[in-house]
Amino acid sequence: MALKVGLTSLKFENGVNIKSVSSVAGTKEGEGPLKEYIDILVNDNLYGQKTWEKAETEFVKKAVETAAQKAALSLNNIDYILAGDLQNQSAASCFGVKDFKRPFFGLFGACSTFGEGLSLGAVLIDSGCGKNVMCEASSHFSAAEAQFRFPPELGNQRPQTSTWTVTGAGAAVLSDEGSEPKITGITTGKIVDLGITDANNMGAAMAPAAADVLLNHFKDFSAAPESYDRIFTGDLGSVGSKLLIELLREKGYDIQKQHRDCGMLIYDSDKQDTHAGGSGCACSAITFSMIYKRLLTGEYNKILFMPTGALMNPSSVAQGESILGICHIVMIERQV
Amino acid sequence: MALKVGLTSLKFENGVNIKSVSSVAGTKEGEGPLKEYIDILVNDNLYGQKTWEKAETEFVKKAVETAAQKAALSLNNIDYILAGDLQNQSAASCFGVKDFKRPFFGLFGACSTFGEGLSLGAVLIDSGCGKNVMCEASSHFSAAEAQFRFPPELGNQRPQTSTWTVTGAGAAVLSDEGSEPKITGITTGKIVDLGITDANNMGAAMAPAAADVLLNHFKDFSAAPESYDRIFTGDLGSVGSKLLIELLREKGYDIQKQHRDCGMLIYDSDKQDTHAGGSGCACSAITFSMIYKRLLTGEYNKILFMPTGALMNPSSVAQGESILGICHIVMIERQV
Repeated sequence: MALKVGLTSLKFENGVNIKSVSSVAGTKEGEGPLKEYIDILVNDNLYGQKTWEKAETEFVKKAVETAAQKAALSLNNIDYILAGDLQNQSAASCFGVKDFKRPFFGLFGACSTFGEGLSLGAVLIDSGCGKNVMCEASSHFSAAEAQFRFPPELGNQRPQTSTWTVTGAGAAVLSDEGSEPKITGITTGKIVDLGITDANNMGAAMAPAAADVLLNHFKDFSAAPESYDRIFTGDLGSVGSKLLIELLREKGYDIQKQHRDCGMLIYDSDKQDTHAGGSGCACSAITFSMIYKRLLTGEYNKILFMPTGALMNPSSVAQGESILGICHIVMIERQV
Repeated sequence: MALKVGLTSLKFENGVNIKSVSSVAGTKEGEGPLKEYIDILVNDNLYGQKTWEKAETEFVKKAVETAAQKAALSLNNIDYILAGDLQNQSAASCFGVKDFKRPFFGLFGACSTFGEGLSLGAVLIDSGCGKNVMCEASSHFSAAEAQFRFPPELGNQRPQTSTWTVTGAGAAVLSDEGSEPKITGITTGKIVDLGITDANNMGAAMAPAAADVLLNHFKDFSAAPESYDRIFTGDLGSVGSKLLIELLREKGYDIQKQHRDCGMLIYDSDKQDTHAGGSGCACSAITFSMIYKRLLTGEYNKILFMPTGALMNPSSVAQGESILGICHIVMIERQV
C-alpha cells in the first residue's frame, strides 16, 4: 500500500521488486565506459532497417524482449507496458511494442520518461493492479537530431554545451514478487520554467527541475545527500550538473560526493567528442543497467535515480517559448 | 483496492469519484449539438494568441482551471496532473499545465489520451496515492491539420472518410470522496494493427482496436451490450462506427442500440460539413461533459466511455508504416 509522504512523494512500504533490467545500444555507446553493462551492443545503428526511426523501433522491441527473458517471463505475463520516446507522437514506442499485444500506456516525459514509467509502474504493482509491468524508454541519435535540430548529414558544428542523444533502449520489469532491488519511493516532478531558450543547452533547462524535485524529496523523506550511496540524474551533462550542484548548495545541500549524471557516465566525452555528455530517453534507461548491477552486487545499497527531461518541440522554440524542465525521482534500495 | 478482473481489466470496488468535469471549445463546437453542455465557448480559435499551438495551450489552462473551480478545489490541492495532446512532444499539455506547478505525468495515447488519463488517474486515487487527480486532454483543428496533413490555408479537398479535429480541451477531477458518478472499472487497450495506411481514414484504423478492447471488457466483466445504458466510442466517426458495429456483430454482439460515437455527436455533420465526424483528443474529452451531466441527472446509470486513438506520425506514414489503433475503456456508474 502506497503511503503519501509529504507533498509530492509516495513510499512503498514493501517495495516494488525490479525483477530484471535490459539495455540495447548502438555503436558509440558500445565504445563507451558502460559497454560491459549493456546486454546487446548493435554494430549498425540502422539495426538492419532503412530508416533511423524504424531502427529505434527495433531497439525498443529488443529491449522489451530481453527484459522479459531476463525475468524468465513470457510477454503474455506482462500486465501492462509503459513506454515512451522522443519521436513525434511517441512512434518508436507504439511501433516497437505493438506486436507484443499487451495493455499499453504511452507516456511522454521527454528524457525523463523512464523515470515516469518506473513511477507509474511501481504504483500499478504496489496497488495490486498487475503482477508484472514492463517499463521502457528509447532514443536514437540520428532520429532525434533530424527531428529537433539538424540532419546529421548537414555537418553543423555543435556547441560545447550540446549533448549527444544516446542510441538505444532500456527496459525494466517490475514485479510483485522477488528478492531483487526494490523501488521504495517516488517523488514526482513539477514542470519548471526558467526561461532557457537554447535547444543546444538542455542541461541548463533541466537542472532547475532536478533541483526542485530533489529538494522536495529531501523534505518529504527528511533525507539528505548522505542518505544515499549515489544520486543519479538522467542527462544534465557537464553544464547542467554543475548548475544542479550550485543550486543545491545555495539551499544548503552539498550533493557533489553522491551525485553522478548518466549523461557523463555513458560516454568518455574527451575521447568520444560528445561535448557536454549524453542525453535522450535511452541515456538514463541504458545507464540504469549499470546502476541495477551495482545494486545487485551490493556496491550500492540505496540510491536515487532521477531521469531529467526537457519539454519542447521545434515549433515551440521557433515560436519563442522557453524549454521546460521536468525530473522524476525513483528511490531504490537493495534490501527492504 | 483495485481488483484484477479477467486478463486486461481492473474493478474499483468503492468507485473513484468524478468530482467535476470541464470543457472549453472553439467556434465550430459552439455551433454544434453539444454547445449547451460546454462550459466555455470561445469565439476566437486563436484564443487571443498569435499561433494555433499557443491557442491550444490556452484551452488547456482554461479547462484545468475550470475543472478545479467546479470541484471547489485550489490547484494546490491537486496531487497529480495527467495530460496529453496531439502536438509533437505533447507541447500543448506541457506549456498548458506548467504554471500550475503540480506533479505532472505526461501521457501519449493520441485521441485515446483522455481515456488513458482517467484510467491511470483512477488507479492513483483508488490506491491512495492522491486525494485529487486532474486528467486533461486537448486538440486544435488548425494545429493538428498543419502538423499531420496540410495547412488549412492550402484549401486541400477533404475526402468523405476524413474527420474534423475538435478544437478545445476537456478535464476531469477524480477524487477520493464525493457522491458524484464514479469510475468503477477500466479495461486497458492493446495496440491493434490492421494495416490501414490512409491518414484520412483514421476511423477504420481505430475500429478494430475498439472492437478488441470491448470484447475483452465483455469477457472480463461477464458483461454484454445490455449491461450499459450507453457505450461511447471516442472518435470513430461514421465510417469507423459502422465498422465497429460489424466487427462486434461477427463476434455475436449487437451494440447498435447502446453505441454512440463522440465524433458523431459533437457536430451536425450534414450542416457543419465535417464529413465522417469529429476527432482529436478533445472530441471525447469535451463530449464527456454531456455524458457526465446525463449521469448526474440520472438519464444514464451505467455507461462505457472508450476514447479511441490512432497512433502514427507523418514520418511513419511516409515510411510506409500503417496507422495503429488503441482504445481504453472507462466504466462509469451513477451510484455504487
